Amino acid sequence: MQEITGEINSSYTPYGEFKNHIGEVVTVKGTIHNIRDMSDFAFIILRTARELIQCVYSPEFSDFRLSEDIVEQACAKVSAKVVQSQTRDGSERYELQIHNIELLSKPADIPPVVISKKQVVCDLNVLLDNRPVTLRNPKERAIFKIQEGIQRGFRDYLISKNFTEIHSPKINFAGAEGGTNVFKLDYFGKTVYLAQSPQLYKQALVPVYERVFEIAPVFRAEHHDTSRHLNEYISMDFEMGFIDGFEDIMNMETGALKYIMNLLKTEYAPEVELLKVDIPEITSIPTIKFKDAKALCVKKLKNITDMKDFEPEEEAFLGKWAKQQYNSDFLFVTHYLSKKRPFYTMDDPEDPEVTLSFDLLFRGIEITSGGQRIHDYNQQVEKMKKSGMNPEEFETYLMLHKYGAPPHGGLGLGLERLTMHLLGFKNVRYATMFPRDINRVTP
Amino acid sequence: MQEITGEINSSYTPYGEFKNHIGEVVTVKGTIHNIRDMSDFAFIILRTARELIQCVYSPEFSDFRLSEDIVEQACAKVSAKVVQSQTRDGSERYELQIHNIELLSKPADIPPVVISKKQVVCDLNVLLDNRPVTLRNPKERAIFKIQEGIQRGFRDYLISKNFTEIHSPKINFAGAEGGTNVFKLDYFGKTVYLAQSPQLYKQALVPVYERVFEIAPVFRAEHHDTSRHLNEYISMDFEMGFIDGFEDIMNMETGALKYIMNLLKTEYAPEVELLKVDIPEITSIPTIKFKDAKALCVKKLKNITDMKDFEPEEEAFLGKWAKQQYNSDFLFVTHYLSKKRPFYTMDDPEDPEVTLSFDLLFRGIEITSGGQRIHDYNQQVEKMKKSGMNPEEFETYLMLHKYGAPPHGGLGLGLERLTMHLLGFKNVRYATMFPRDINRVTP
Repeated sequence: MQEITGEINSSYTPYGEFKNHIGEVVTVKGTIHNIRDMSDFAFIILRTARELIQCVYSPEFSDFRLSEDIVEQACAKVSAKVVQSQTRDGSERYELQIHNIELLSKPADIPPVVISKKQVVCDLNVLLDNRPVTLRNPKERAIFKIQEGIQRGFRDYLISKNFTEIHSPKINFAGAEGGTNVFKLDYFGKTVYLAQSPQLYKQALVPVYERVFEIAPVFRAEHHDTSRHLNEYISMDFEMGFIDGFEDIMNMETGALKYIMNLLKTEYAPEVELLKVDIPEITSIPTIKFKDAKALCVKKLKNITDMKDFEPEEEAFLGKWAKQQYNSDFLFVTHYLSKKRPFYTMDDPEDPEVTLSFDLLFRGIEITSGGQRIHDYNQQVEKMKKSGMNPEEFETYLMLHKYGAPPHGGLGLGLERLTMHLLGFKNVRYATMFPRDINRVTP
Repeated sequence: MQEITGEINSSYTPYGEFKNHIGEVVTVKGTIHNIRDMSDFAFIILRTARELIQCVYSPEFSDFRLSEDIVEQACAKVSAKVVQSQTRDGSERYELQIHNIELLSKPADIPPVVISKKQVVCDLNVLLDNRPVTLRNPKERAIFKIQEGIQRGFRDYLISKNFTEIHSPKINFAGAEGGTNVFKLDYFGKTVYLAQSPQLYKQALVPVYERVFEIAPVFRAEHHDTSRHLNEYISMDFEMGFIDGFEDIMNMETGALKYIMNLLKTEYAPEVELLKVDIPEITSIPTIKFKDAKALCVKKLKNITDMKDFEPEEEAFLGKWAKQQYNSDFLFVTHYLSKKRPFYTMDDPEDPEVTLSFDLLFRGIEITSGGQRIHDYNQQVEKMKKSGMNPEEFETYLMLHKYGAPPHGGLGLGLERLTMHLLGFKNVRYATMFPRDINRVTP
């Protein structure tokens, strides 16, 4: 009988430990990413989980001959001597003089798209059609490593602030925020819906855990084929109770963003460098009321017709304004009009035309909507009726209010959209591993 | 202009800091969980995110009178003096002598189920119908705090082992593991499917990141109405490349389980104590081959007819056997029959009738299936054909193999099921916040 102890006895040496083995023979494993045959010697670039390792083949020290078996995308175990070299900028680098290669697997064909160059050069559709291959390119995979860092920072920060992680069901009996844009599903003869948002569940859990968050897919049946809409995306949501005001929510987000940016700079430094990510510096984030922001836009921009909301060009202008005025990449716009925010938003007691709500603009593009929610039962029922909703259809949701809820609020943040803007992409699909839109459900 | 700095200036004192404020007046916030009027004084139990705080009202030190406004489920801000007391077992405890109460919100009605007692006593359906309320009971909410700890431990351990967190799409163009039990969805005129498993995506990402994991919902159109099936559940999956054998996968899982149990004992101690969770001690986990385990069952149990798989009573027997023989709550059963495992499972080269696969039994119940996968293109195509599948329908999946993949394998672990067995429940619904089954999609 074999016992499993939990230890993996690996004899492999990761790149990070090369500096302790200079002049020694080590064993590494990886995928052959690129071969450059220089006639009397060859560079064999080994791709590992986060690095490219330069290996050198030469009859001088290699105990084998370069054969047709040694091809790009083959996986290999390499034993080699660690040699220290210098890059042009003077930083230390290690390369390997290969003694021997053991092939672990071989591809059956060469990739349909070149992935061994610095950049994958192809049309967006080709890039996406071939995701299982194109993601192997170091720059492509770095995008989603950065994305991992964003959500990890969000989560770690909230856990450190005593938030509880929840999982709300994605099969819902009713659309959380009204009936449009929801995917319908046959569920053993009943019609059910895919969750558009965890809104009603996260609110229900505020009286349970006080502070909750969820990072999970949401589904929107968007008919638009635009550069920023997805039909399935990852929503990072939180909701917190016992707030003293909706500033608490903005403060929590600001704290999370600071933490995320710092995490990226430290633990995701290789990817930040590879993609030349312009990480924003955050000390504090300025705020402006919707009506003041609108006045600014009207003063500076032409042809503004919609006085109740912003057009993308107005958000772009406000982004530039925040940068000039406050040297900030972020701007909170607060107190949006009541008729433009969802039924659960709390109106400002000092001016019921506006709400205790906010959007966060990042470099001129909205990345978050949030605000304080109504916690009083009668107030919520009344606002539903005013909006033409039938409170009886929301009986389960209203349990929250009926049986007591503290003052609370929260926000939602689209993971792909934040990744997109942080990396400066013009299309959210570049920041989505396997995008789903009106034309695409593959791969 | 107001600036948001990321700091929340809270004047509240959490329970954990009471010991530094003995004799002082502090401010706390919470929900009034229970009021016990003792005629000349009253106990007001305040529920915070993870504790119940005993507060005492008495005209002697309280600057207000108990009124009809002060009811259970009202939310309040309390200023009170910290007093140290002792519990029966001699441990330290703090209670608050209330000076004043400020009500932050009031319920509109009393809860339909009593939640202020130690246990919620009601039928399972009533418990679930009223989840937004019943979860407020400290024992009920503790279940899902433990569940949080399990997934957090799984994730933190894998991140420490250089796994990358992924999000695979839940809207799929084809069922990942065959066409039965999948939910179908109309997607702008096309038929698409809800993901049964992230299997094909996590494998596709092995050549990209080497090690990946995902914690996300999966959907199965189970027609069975049993105590252990759910139609939506949280699957904890990982997949790792460059393995030396499928033992690496079992070792990774064992390491993760050790880490999880330790995390529960430390950071989730209040909930472990409240629910009297019997946390298993793991030093190492024994293994037994399927055929040897079957032989044991045949020897000890009667009426075994299916020689290709286990009945629940056989797993229960094997669980007891592992406990007696090795004092282990866990048992890996390995080398299941090839015809009983999915098409991507690697056959044992020494005996192609069996596979390099395993199940993990926890106290006699299967909680994990895992194993090594086929990485060679021709081998995978051949096995698909043998299973009557058309490789052309799996073109995207086969990109993984065609363009080179390292030896790899992984596993899946149902979060609710593990929670259920750890807490000793007989029905998985007790360990599911908002269960979806053939009869239930609410709340």
